[in-house]
Amino acid sequence: MPDITNLSIVLAARPEGRPKASDFRIEQSVIPQPADGELLLQVLYLSLDPYMRGRMNAAKSYAKPVELGQVMEGGTVARVVSSRHPDFEEGDIVLSHSGWQSFAVSDGAGLRKLDPSAAPITTALGILGMPGFTAYAGLLTIGRPKPGETVVVAAASGAVGSAVGQIARIKGARAVGIAGGPEKCRFVKEELGFDAMVDHRATDFPEQLRAVCPDGIDVYFENVGGHVWDAVFPLLNEFARIPVCGLIAQYNAVGHDGADRFPTFMREVLSRSLTIRGFIQREFVEQRPAFYREMADWLAFGKILYREDIVDGLANAPDAFIGLLEGRNFGKLIVRVS
Amino acid sequence: MPDITNLSIVLAARPEGRPKASDFRIEQSVIPQPADGELLLQVLYLSLDPYMRGRMNAAKSYAKPVELGQVMEGGTVARVVSSRHPDFEEGDIVLSHSGWQSFAVSDGAGLRKLDPSAAPITTALGILGMPGFTAYAGLLTIGRPKPGETVVVAAASGAVGSAVGQIARIKGARAVGIAGGPEKCRFVKEELGFDAMVDHRATDFPEQLRAVCPDGIDVYFENVGGHVWDAVFPLLNEFARIPVCGLIAQYNAVGHDGADRFPTFMREVLSRSLTIRGFIQREFVEQRPAFYREMADWLAFGKILYREDIVDGLANAPDAFIGLLEGRNFGKLIVRVS
Repeated sequence: MPDITNLSIVLAARPEGRPKASDFRIEQSVIPQPADGELLLQVLYLSLDPYMRGRMNAAKSYAKPVELGQVMEGGTVARVVSSRHPDFEEGDIVLSHSGWQSFAVSDGAGLRKLDPSAAPITTALGILGMPGFTAYAGLLTIGRPKPGETVVVAAASGAVGSAVGQIARIKGARAVGIAGGPEKCRFVKEELGFDAMVDHRATDFPEQLRAVCPDGIDVYFENVGGHVWDAVFPLLNEFARIPVCGLIAQYNAVGHDGADRFPTFMREVLSRSLTIRGFIQREFVEQRPAFYREMADWLAFGKILYREDIVDGLANAPDAFIGLLEGRNFGKLIVRVS
Repeated sequence: MPDITNLSIVLAARPEGRPKASDFRIEQSVIPQPADGELLLQVLYLSLDPYMRGRMNAAKSYAKPVELGQVMEGGTVARVVSSRHPDFEEGDIVLSHSGWQSFAVSDGAGLRKLDPSAAPITTALGILGMPGFTAYAGLLTIGRPKPGETVVVAAASGAVGSAVGQIARIKGARAVGIAGGPEKCRFVKEELGFDAMVDHRATDFPEQLRAVCPDGIDVYFENVGGHVWDAVFPLLNEFARIPVCGLIAQYNAVGHDGADRFPTFMREVLSRSLTIRGFIQREFVEQRPAFYREMADWLAFGKILYREDIVDGLANAPDAFIGLLEGRNFGKLIVRVS
């Protein structure tokens, strides 16, 4: 009776460095039943995002870690299977935070009903969801690109990066993307219309980046860290703004060798009047209505395109997530759960 | 005939690490004569400021370096000795940028007439000048202290730091100062009214700082760097703002050993949504009228006090400047030139 079994993926061990399959464990359980005021959700799609790597560590980041044996956290699109909640009925499609599992009970808090006729429901996990909003709020509030300025973003074929570059272009800035491999670079430049693309795997990546940023860099949307930062840093213009929303390249890092880059960093912060600003999208919650409105328009008018990378089956989520941290995905990574 | 000799101090050698006396050279020359449209200035007071250390390096910072053999740069208060310029007359007192010398010819550009009856003319180099404005603009525009928040500043008995803490208190924030030695700490707490002071020379300085910041740090006005930063960093609250106006502790540094602190720094920027913003006061030039007005009021009502450390004789400027970088001065450092 596969339909009456809840599958979930729990954190089995805290990874040292890059996660491996054995850090996750798949578990079966009886499907929970909603009490009065609750509803039962069947997860259709699970979003996989880089921030989840942080939750696997014991240290508190901007959110509490996932405990060992606990279901991995994650944003989901789900269908209401049965409802004892006055605001929801069977068949409703909702955005929820049900995690890496196939069924979940909810009391309705934090759910957002989706209109499947307005946009594909998976977009609520990507361009019309948290990643799209991260790009929108971080770029416009912290990055503040002006017409003619140069905006650089890495992971440019990914959920956040692809939106950053396209919004930058809507605002009249030059969008320079960075991605891994010729296929992604071609896609972002040809399909998404970035002004220039650089492959960070190229041996002369820093020189290539310099060549496509002849006027320097005014906004660097930081979502990767690592060797991309090292190539970007010397090109930052006076008054450059650096929204920091992720550091995927260093999430798996276990230690650091080499010279202390911090004093040089601070000297340049001072001499070039740089702004570095870490953020998480939820601090800009008051901008969400404007985001939904503007982004829906941009999508409707074809000003913003997006790409999804959909993996089938919850059991494949760990491998897909490990691949995400290595840049194996091509577009917003989503797991089709049921 | 000492009165007809111009004394100047030129950059003799680029310092490796901390400057030494032989990096400067005193020169004598004939007093220059103003051409039509020019005026001759006799320097009364020379301001010595940490930023000058940066100008002694060959590398361009936010301003061009001083060339070898060139007169050291600096802000000055001067008297007009003779004028062939329609806007100035003999006896006028002006704020100028005449550098480390006793006489200078000017075409009038950038001069600001001072009213000796409004405030002591030396204040144009300190609390009512560039250092005071650095404190004002950096704290209010970037730091934005809210009532009840904790503002920390080092070099708290100095020209910038003392103003930062006092303005923070005017805005309803708690001011925590850091200085070197009990005398300075006592002065800042007892005389300037900071809420707490910590001596950075204490062996348990980080623990002392933590103890006087029980609610963490919301604004750290960075003007020193070095081991003060290391103590401040773990105490920064979510959404803390860090205006960076100077790094005196690392100006003399020649190299760095130890672990790379940069990845940890960026991780905390992200997880605590920190803002780091380098600045130089001139970018906020449009705020200067408000500054002159507000600061004059604060001085008049005794809400802001200041302390000057006046050294006699231009020949003593190099030694005084070397001492400034070591924290030997006590208050705004000024050289009485003539």
